[in-house]
Amino acid sequence: MAIKQDIRLAVDAVIFSFAANIKKVLLVQRKNDPFKGQWVFPGGFVDDGENLETAAIRELEEETSLRMENLSQLKAYGDPGRDPRGHTVTVAFIGQVNADAVKTKAASDAEAAKWFDLNDLPQLGFDHSEILKDAIKFFKK
Amino acid sequence: MAIKQDIRLAVDAVIFSFAANIKKVLLVQRKNDPFKGQWVFPGGFVDDGENLETAAIRELEEETSLRMENLSQLKAYGDPGRDPRGHTVTVAFIGQVNADAVKTKAASDAEAAKWFDLNDLPQLGFDHSEILKDAIKFFKK
Repeated sequence: MAIKQDIRLAVDAVIFSFAANIKKVLLVQRKNDPFKGQWVFPGGFVDDGENLETAAIRELEEETSLRMENLSQLKAYGDPGRDPRGHTVTVAFIGQVNADAVKTKAASDAEAAKWFDLNDLPQLGFDHSEILKDAIKFFKK
Repeated sequence: MAIKQDIRLAVDAVIFSFAANIKKVLLVQRKNDPFKGQWVFPGGFVDDGENLETAAIRELEEETSLRMENLSQLKAYGDPGRDPRGHTVTVAFIGQVNADAVKTKAASDAEAAKWFDLNDLPQLGFDHSEILKDAIKFFKK
């Protein structure tokens, strides 16, 4: 197409576990800059010709080994300054599993993958604190 | 950024009017292919460095002369086949005005801009029928 854009499209997966009344969220530790060493939602860039939800499911599995059948779309985040590498829009998806019933293992460009209690979260990279707030609101609806 | 993607990012604005119990939606007639002559929501491509909502407000004004202060985000639509020109993801926004209290006038790449009764709609281009269904559900919440 003739349209030239310098914008990247990404997806993120916010996965909650509400088992045994302990509210947890699945995070991965970044292996590379930006935000190297910080915790973020599993996610990454959409492939050409790939559906948004498919991309979120793929990135989730690639980074955490967790395979989800479907995810719900939360919202698109498009602040041009949200990624220091350049204008990147991410579409966030959310899902729910029982953390005790699934295995997760860091892979791809994730240094680690870990469930965190929502009351004891590390500092999140990018704008993922804002995404988390919206995701929690979504589940309270 | 090193990431190469062949994906375009667009926005669309679904503007309803519920005045005097007549439910209307604002559509524009496409001047160019694809879907030349068909009716669609005002919209277009996001500029580099531009916020999604800002882009939707800008495209709405460029194509219909209607100036909205803010819009709500509905959803991102990313089926790779939704635009025959190539993989294009659109983020749809919605807003509400009183059609009798505002002026609209086709401009930019819109052949015409017109309010349509929701009970008497033309065939919509792209996947805009699906977007309209979601937008109607959103307002019924």
